[in-house]
Amino acid sequence: MNLFSKSFAEQLDPQQLAAMIDHTLLKADATESQIHALCREAVDYRFASVCVNPVWVPCCAGQLRDEKIPVCTVLGFPLGASQTSIKVEEAKLAISQGATEIDMVMCIGRFKSGHFAKMQEDVAAVVAASAPHLVKVILETCLLRDDEIIRACELAVAAGAGYVKTSTGFAAAGAKADHIRLMRQTVGAKIGVKASGGIRDLATALEMIHAGASRIGASASVSIIQQVHKPGE
Amino acid sequence: MNLFSKSFAEQLDPQQLAAMIDHTLLKADATESQIHALCREAVDYRFASVCVNPVWVPCCAGQLRDEKIPVCTVLGFPLGASQTSIKVEEAKLAISQGATEIDMVMCIGRFKSGHFAKMQEDVAAVVAASAPHLVKVILETCLLRDDEIIRACELAVAAGAGYVKTSTGFAAAGAKADHIRLMRQTVGAKIGVKASGGIRDLATALEMIHAGASRIGASASVSIIQQVHKPGE
Repeated sequence: MNLFSKSFAEQLDPQQLAAMIDHTLLKADATESQIHALCREAVDYRFASVCVNPVWVPCCAGQLRDEKIPVCTVLGFPLGASQTSIKVEEAKLAISQGATEIDMVMCIGRFKSGHFAKMQEDVAAVVAASAPHLVKVILETCLLRDDEIIRACELAVAAGAGYVKTSTGFAAAGAKADHIRLMRQTVGAKIGVKASGGIRDLATALEMIHAGASRIGASASVSIIQQVHKPGE
Repeated sequence: MNLFSKSFAEQLDPQQLAAMIDHTLLKADATESQIHALCREAVDYRFASVCVNPVWVPCCAGQLRDEKIPVCTVLGFPLGASQTSIKVEEAKLAISQGATEIDMVMCIGRFKSGHFAKMQEDVAAVVAASAPHLVKVILETCLLRDDEIIRACELAVAAGAGYVKTSTGFAAAGAKADHIRLMRQTVGAKIGVKASGGIRDLATALEMIHAGASRIGASASVSIIQQVHKPGE
């Protein structure tokens, strides 16, 4: 079966779908008790990971130590405009505190200025500092033209990224199926594609998977899973 | 004359007003040429500073070396949720590259979780790392109740901040005159109050100054100055 066929997406059972979702809480005012609740939900539903801001990595790593749920964190988030050496230090610190997945924002400003080599070096430095852990590169697709999305994907692949990801959820728009298709066509089957930003229901999640997403970032993960009809219902 | 009286604000000439404005460009997709234009405008109008993301500090410092326009940058921006040691490294790097003002976002999540000591330590660490340069602490007032604004101001003062600042410009709302009044009442005349986020015209800028702001953060700075009627017009 084609991994990204419509029938594949529609035949996913709740467990399979949950295993594709990074259960995410990145709001500036998220509290420790909300972060604890996020971790409990991740355990209950067996989500792919919890995705939190760096300040909450130790808290999540402590709570999830025996649960085999990865802790994912974000770097240079959401503007991508911190210096490479700072992104590198932030990656090392997060990993030392228990993070095993790193979602970094590419330097959109450098990319838009035509500084492609510097943008690629920024990603490569974080990939090297994070090895062997997975690094996802957020492109912020709503700020890019189609040719820019292709170029950014190529640079991310060349830099050793494990995933390209559409959105931070803090810009004007989130994931679009057309962008996912373009990203998947560009990176092929070699690396992952993560759809994130504005994915609030099952239909949208399945649309993204059908378009080529291998991971979904969502805050509404529990609601999305609860919309799946289990076999026999 | 009362520094924050209505008549004071209304009698400001364009030069005096410009000297109160941090000329700001923090969009993720701002390009190098837009940053250069920002610096040229800052020289032309003698703004208080240029305020840019960390990745652009070397560029601005180079362009403004002989112009006596400070370079201001942002840390942990706009979510405030990076670890203290990373904010400290980011401050040191920015200052080594020519920044002389630091606008840091307080850790809103820790504050909202009741971790007041950790929030204060976060600010104090950046203040120590940045000395003797000015540190402004962004509260993100639209996420706070009035009693929380007062508490955050008190903690920022105790931590040695030189300014409290309302907003990042990336949350649901920016500066409100009521919040500026509350912040000024809380910190007294000891430290500065910066109004930022959504200040797009002269009337709003003057309203903020009248309410107690001693600095304005704006991207529409040129337009604001051009709205001032010069004496004799």
